[in-house]
Amino acid sequence: MPQTVITIATRGQGLYEFTDAATDFVRQSGIAEGLLTVFVRHTSASLLIQENADPDVKRDLTEFFGRLVPPSSDPTMRWIVHTQEGPDDMPAHIKAALTQVSLGIPISDARMMLGTWQGLYLFEHRDRPHRREIVLHLGA
Amino acid sequence: MPQTVITIATRGQGLYEFTDAATDFVRQSGIAEGLLTVFVRHTSASLLIQENADPDVKRDLTEFFGRLVPPSSDPTMRWIVHTQEGPDDMPAHIKAALTQVSLGIPISDARMMLGTWQGLYLFEHRDRPHRREIVLHLGA
Amino acid sequence: MPQTVITIATRGQGLYEFTDAATDFVRQSGIAEGLLTVFVRHTSASLLIQENADPDVKRDLTEFFGRLVPPSSDPTMRWIVHTQEGPDDMPAHIKAALTQVSLGIPISDARMMLGTWQGLYLFEHRDRPHRREIVLHLGA
Repeated sequence: MPQTVITIATRGQGLYEFTDAATDFVRQSGIAEGLLTVFVRHTSASLLIQENADPDVKRDLTEFFGRLVPPSSDPTMRWIVHTQEGPDDMPAHIKAALTQVSLGIPISDARMMLGTWQGLYLFEHRDRPHRREIVLHLGA
Repeated sequence: MPQTVITIATRGQGLYEFTDAATDFVRQSGIAEGLLTVFVRHTSASLLIQENADPDVKRDLTEFFGRLVPPSSDPTMRWIVHTQEGPDDMPAHIKAALTQVSLGIPISDARMMLGTWQGLYLFEHRDRPHRREIVLHLGA
Repeated sequence: MPQTVITIATRGQGLYEFTDAATDFVRQSGIAEGLLTVFVRHTSASLLIQENADPDVKRDLTEFFGRLVPPSSDPTMRWIVHTQEGPDDMPAHIKAALTQVSLGIPISDARMMLGTWQGLYLFEHRDRPHRREIVLHLGA
């Protein structure tokens, strides 16, 4: 059961692709069939599998979540109590709750069985740079 | 580690149940205990486990997501940039991000440990018919 | 492949932590490396991994989902058809669809590889008390 932790340095809200790192991890494991589990060790960043063809998709996704969950400084969000870590913190927790903390991706022929347009992304929800840890676990 | 890919022909937005196909796959594997992973190979369709008793639940779910994320032709959605694949495309990506790309379901006694009312659904987010591929992976 | 079912007695909408029960299950299994899958057997309660430091985060999360998906008795929700199980029932299904039915958490050194602030929660979406079943499955 190979495991590794990869670190992604983020520079504000948005999607950061790590498909290549996962592909390499699977190939180097020498395992042909199995299940890759991806797990993010944070509560203000999350995981997404999304289209990796048009960069506008990434921009529109980030924009949607920003409109659905504005900063706690926004007049519509005055009900938020947890504000002491900044106006982007509680919205970050909410956006993480609305997306994924873990993904399970079947492996066949030593490759992730992704569809043609699917890429793996870390979804950073905080404004400032962070170092985000993602666990990759390759099991049966 | 048995694996299979099932294909679902969709006819527009909505929920398409495939619980029986998963039940059959598990039973035919001859595996009594393990983990079934379900993975959808698309970024404009997703997965849900929901109530399979009242068809109105399916209708209300589809309606909710349609109201939360209207077509990009809607006046409230003019901020969407990725429009070249049609007004239902970027909303489809957003709805997929809000739901699941993979599910993990424990197996016991050669059956999925679903609750009484739980059924497995493909959630189609595009208007036109599509052929959607779902990977079923039965591991340890 | 150890499996167990834990039951959580809920007392209305909100987040109920069960990190300790999962920690104990992993430790008692004697398995050092593997994958813990958590699965909730309901369609009106769901799973979340969230910050367990400040209780206000739990309150704000519950409040957000209550505002995003008001009861079907709310004037803005008159389009809901499935109302016969009470005004909190269809919103409960929607909130469950927006969060997780299953989680996959890698195990290393006989411990869940959670981040510092991550805790496991059942997210109850119904108003009345319920007994909720969660399956814990520890595999390879």
